[in-house]
Amino acid sequence: MTDMPDAKLLECFPNPEPRHAYTIEHVSDEFTSVCPKTGHPDFGSVVVRFSPASKCVELKSLKLYFQSFRNEGIFYEAVTNRIRDDLAKAMKPRWLVIETHWKGRGGIRSTITATHGRVPEGMSDV
Amino acid sequence: MTDMPDAKLLECFPNPEPRHAYTIEHVSDEFTSVCPKTGHPDFGSVVVRFSPASKCVELKSLKLYFQSFRNEGIFYEAVTNRIRDDLAKAMKPRWLVIETHWKGRGGIRSTITATHGRVPEGMSDV
Amino acid sequence: MTDMPDAKLLECFPNPEPRHAYTIEHVSDEFTSVCPKTGHPDFGSVVVRFSPASKCVELKSLKLYFQSFRNEGIFYEAVTNRIRDDLAKAMKPRWLVIETHWKGRGGIRSTITATHGRVPEGMSDV
Amino acid sequence: MTDMPDAKLLECFPNPEPRHAYTIEHVSDEFTSVCPKTGHPDFGSVVVRFSPASKCVELKSLKLYFQSFRNEGIFYEAVTNRIRDDLAKAMKPRWLVIETHWKGRGGIRSTITATHGRVPEGMSDV
Amino acid sequence: MTDMPDAKLLECFPNPEPRHAYTIEHVSDEFTSVCPKTGHPDFGSVVVRFSPASKCVELKSLKLYFQSFRNEGIFYEAVTNRIRDDLAKAMKPRWLVIETHWKGRGGIRSTITATHGRVPEGMSDV
Amino acid sequence: MTDMPDAKLLECFPNPEPRHAYTIEHVSDEFTSVCPKTGHPDFGSVVVRFSPASKCVELKSLKLYFQSFRNEGIFYEAVTNRIRDDLAKAMKPRWLVIETHWKGRGGIRSTITATHGRVPEGMSDV
Amino acid sequence: MTDMPDAKLLECFPNPEPRHAYTIEHVSDEFTSVCPKTGHPDFGSVVVRFSPASKCVELKSLKLYFQSFRNEGIFYEAVTNRIRDDLAKAMKPRWLVIETHWKGRGGIRSTITATHGRVPEGMSDV
Amino acid sequence: MTDMPDAKLLECFPNPEPRHAYTIEHVSDEFTSVCPKTGHPDFGSVVVRFSPASKCVELKSLKLYFQSFRNEGIFYEAVTNRIRDDLAKAMKPRWLVIETHWKGRGGIRSTITATHGRVPEGMSDV
Amino acid sequence: MTDMPDAKLLECFPNPEPRHAYTIEHVSDEFTSVCPKTGHPDFGSVVVRFSPASKCVELKSLKLYFQSFRNEGIFYEAVTNRIRDDLAKAMKPRWLVIETHWKGRGGIRSTITATHGRVPEGMSDV
Amino acid sequence: MTDMPDAKLLECFPNPEPRHAYTIEHVSDEFTSVCPKTGHPDFGSVVVRFSPASKCVELKSLKLYFQSFRNEGIFYEAVTNRIRDDLAKAMKPRWLVIETHWKGRGGIRSTITATHGRVPEGMSDV
Repeated sequence: MTDMPDAKLLECFPNPEPRHAYTIEHVSDEFTSVCPKTGHPDFGSVVVRFSPASKCVELKSLKLYFQSFRNEGIFYEAVTNRIRDDLAKAMKPRWLVIETHWKGRGGIRSTITATHGRVPEGMSDV
Repeated sequence: MTDMPDAKLLECFPNPEPRHAYTIEHVSDEFTSVCPKTGHPDFGSVVVRFSPASKCVELKSLKLYFQSFRNEGIFYEAVTNRIRDDLAKAMKPRWLVIETHWKGRGGIRSTITATHGRVPEGMSDV
Repeated sequence: MTDMPDAKLLECFPNPEPRHAYTIEHVSDEFTSVCPKTGHPDFGSVVVRFSPASKCVELKSLKLYFQSFRNEGIFYEAVTNRIRDDLAKAMKPRWLVIETHWKGRGGIRSTITATHGRVPEGMSDV
Repeated sequence: MTDMPDAKLLECFPNPEPRHAYTIEHVSDEFTSVCPKTGHPDFGSVVVRFSPASKCVELKSLKLYFQSFRNEGIFYEAVTNRIRDDLAKAMKPRWLVIETHWKGRGGIRSTITATHGRVPEGMSDV
Repeated sequence: MTDMPDAKLLECFPNPEPRHAYTIEHVSDEFTSVCPKTGHPDFGSVVVRFSPASKCVELKSLKLYFQSFRNEGIFYEAVTNRIRDDLAKAMKPRWLVIETHWKGRGGIRSTITATHGRVPEGMSDV
Repeated sequence: MTDMPDAKLLECFPNPEPRHAYTIEHVSDEFTSVCPKTGHPDFGSVVVRFSPASKCVELKSLKLYFQSFRNEGIFYEAVTNRIRDDLAKAMKPRWLVIETHWKGRGGIRSTITATHGRVPEGMSDV
Repeated sequence: MTDMPDAKLLECFPNPEPRHAYTIEHVSDEFTSVCPKTGHPDFGSVVVRFSPASKCVELKSLKLYFQSFRNEGIFYEAVTNRIRDDLAKAMKPRWLVIETHWKGRGGIRSTITATHGRVPEGMSDV
Repeated sequence: MTDMPDAKLLECFPNPEPRHAYTIEHVSDEFTSVCPKTGHPDFGSVVVRFSPASKCVELKSLKLYFQSFRNEGIFYEAVTNRIRDDLAKAMKPRWLVIETHWKGRGGIRSTITATHGRVPEGMSDV
Repeated sequence: MTDMPDAKLLECFPNPEPRHAYTIEHVSDEFTSVCPKTGHPDFGSVVVRFSPASKCVELKSLKLYFQSFRNEGIFYEAVTNRIRDDLAKAMKPRWLVIETHWKGRGGIRSTITATHGRVPEGMSDV
Repeated sequence: MTDMPDAKLLECFPNPEPRHAYTIEHVSDEFTSVCPKTGHPDFGSVVVRFSPASKCVELKSLKLYFQSFRNEGIFYEAVTNRIRDDLAKAMKPRWLVIETHWKGRGGIRSTITATHGRVPEGMSDV
């Protein structure tokens, strides 16, 4: 298992239908990282929603990329924006939405949403 | 059972009501193909929603067509766009929406949506 | 029991309130016909939604009309449009929506929607 | 128990707030009448939704009025419009919606909706 | 316990944030009064939704005010408008909505809604 | 445990993505304070929804800040506006919504909503 | 489609594990026959639960056997016992339970249960 | 992917706690094989419940073993008993229960249960 | 964060009521370890149910103990029995049940149950 | 508000039906105390289920008694047994069950159950 978040784990394959816009949503319910302040693990789910341009992220590489956060001390907000940045750079999609939903810690539940490009209405709550 | 996806399996019958637009939705919960990267089977459901022009796809032929993906190594994205292309070519419908919903693999669930023609509002999330 | 779909089974009575528009919805969960390709029975439910003009369909006659499809070999699409045509002709309603929802056959569930006249917003998904 | 639907059973009391528009909804889940064709009892629920002008219908009198349909042979459509007419005449409300929902008879469930006056958006599905 | 509805029971305290508009909703599920026609008790819930101006109603005084209806013979419609009037007079809010929801009596459930001032969209069903 | 509400408990860290607007929502289901009138404890939940500018509130400090209300005698309305003021001052966000939902006291449930800045549509019910 | 219930439609195959007792349950939700008194169709579901001895009923033949009741005028009770008799004779199972569950007709739902042989505790409600 | 059911795919590892009885349950919702009569694919789920003696089945090998049925023409009953036999032989467990639950085919859903050894009460419905 | 499962992390405090038997249940929904075969992370929940004798496990220490499995390559079965052994040794309870529920991996969900001492009826499925 | 748990707050009144056994259950969803290890507040609910002998606990006094734990540093287990002891001593009931359900802390939810006297089957999970 890799030791830190690593965008190089992300592999893409050519979009099989680059001519027409369509929509892809991947949801991982098994995301975990570490709180940089307390050292305790955080657990959450990550939603990746996008319209591909010339490339699509390969699913197994996405899983390995998510796993690379496992022992990283990183805030929720930074996780969300980092995933947005890494996937935007790797795929150069038409648009991209990242939502992270975090289980309660100290009795507080959190949701963070970040976007890239011009997201169509109804594709994000922001 | 056929050995690879085969659009020739699709049979159509004349639309019994070609004069007026109406809407048809077929949902298969028993779609399976093979991941081209890992060789493991993928399981999902496929939604076909369209308004017929002069032809409708016959249901048993649609089942056999779906079954022809059973041992094909093919990405989710390509499955979705291929079904869209094959049905659009076979039926030449007024409009067409294909949604594929995939069970979790490596803890990640996915949904892919592709369309053909001018889809009326409310008929697709895209 | 009659042997084939028979629009003459439909009886109407004078709309008790022909001056103002209002809405009627009848739902039958016990519709059955026969697949013309395989000879196997199909099972579904039928929604009839309309605004009457001078006539309303009588409920027992509607039941007998639905029962007359019992042994008819007929596609889903033709069932839906035929019911739409027969009821539109018998009642001449202000508008009419027919939805048919079919239980799975070969693992595929289907919904067909046909309309007549100018259906108000919110009265049909089409 | 009265022997036939009797609008004279409806009693009204002065609207305690005639200056401002407001909304009242009464729902009865215990309505029964008789099918004029088969002689079998019908069971349903009735929704009365309105904005009062100078008068409000008194609730016990509404119950007795509903009970007066018990042995009447009358179609769903006529029940709905008759209640609409009787209440419109008795109360002269700003607007009025009557919905009747009927349990299955011969495997068919039905809903009838009739209105009076200019019903605000969201107050009726018609 | 007081013997009749008494608006003087309502106490207010200075709005801690009079500069900006915000929204307050109080819901009581334990309201009871007496039917003026039958003498039977009525049970319901009361929703008080408003935006305060210079004053907020104090919660314990609201409870005592609601309790003062306990032995009063009063119609649903009069309860609703009286609460609206008393709270509008006591608080002089930016806007105010009162909803009363009454449990079934004689098999009939009822809802009454009254408003004061210019209620923003989405704050009332009227 | 601190003895009174203390905004100095709130700690912020630099927004990891200050260039683009995104949305953060924290929900605490374990908020408690004391009614200033009766001395009885109040229990509720607090929703903090905002778009950060240069700073984000740190989660453990938010928890400690919420805990500092534990023995404070304070009205619902003042709690809501105080949290809004303290977080607006500490973070200077693009916009901010505070919702407090209070469990029944004397049979009455309450919800208070306060905002800061220009809240995008769909981000608040006010 | 055959014209009347026909036990000869039932085909069996050798039990692949005749040495040890095990349990099989087949449930059909698409059973229909005709009421011998009114001529109207009946709709229901059939549960077949048994432990095979030397033979198992083949599933497609069971479907065709069920379809052969489609136009037969026959009481619920006779359907249930006839299926029990035909399957007991065809398979000679260790034990057998037939349950039929009928949708409402005239507002009455029905369940009929018949058994063959010594049914283990918990395998039947009788 | 292997071409036929292959018990040699099953790998075991030493039970880490051979001294005390405990219970293991594995559930696969993605089982598919082929109907030997119609050639159409069957879809179902498999429950493996057992108490290990000296060996436990390794999970990835169990998945590959299940996948080896993918293109095998085999009856439900034979699938169930074959899995029971293969796992009983590979692990020699204290006891073992195999349940297979099959999605509807021709409108009929099926459940097959087979056991090995002395199954404690409550561990199987047989 | 510790690097491997460490029973010394478990701290106990004296049972405040050693004279009478009573029952304690702790459920963690945030357990994660690593598959020793594939190197991929496993996610699950752990139920600890017991009756204390002279000692109770302290909750924060239990959390840290669970966290110490985070990067350990270990089978489900070994996790379950190790937790059972470590807690039995640390607390010497009257009886103890450990249940582990694992999210799907390769389409297979698993539950493992291990016990210590004489577990009362209804306290475990074993 | 009292400063520490105080059994003297509990008041009883004579059981109005001492001759026959019957069952009483009180559930408080607003219990809070303080963790003696971390100093953070704990939130939970308390179930009091018993059959009274000569005395019943008065409800307002029970509320004040529960509130007296608000600032007490005390383990879950001690809370549960202390409430059991205090109520058993105050009421001398035929039997008594105390269940405490605690919201997650560090991702772990807990339930503690303590009893007094001979609890009938089905009245407690112990």
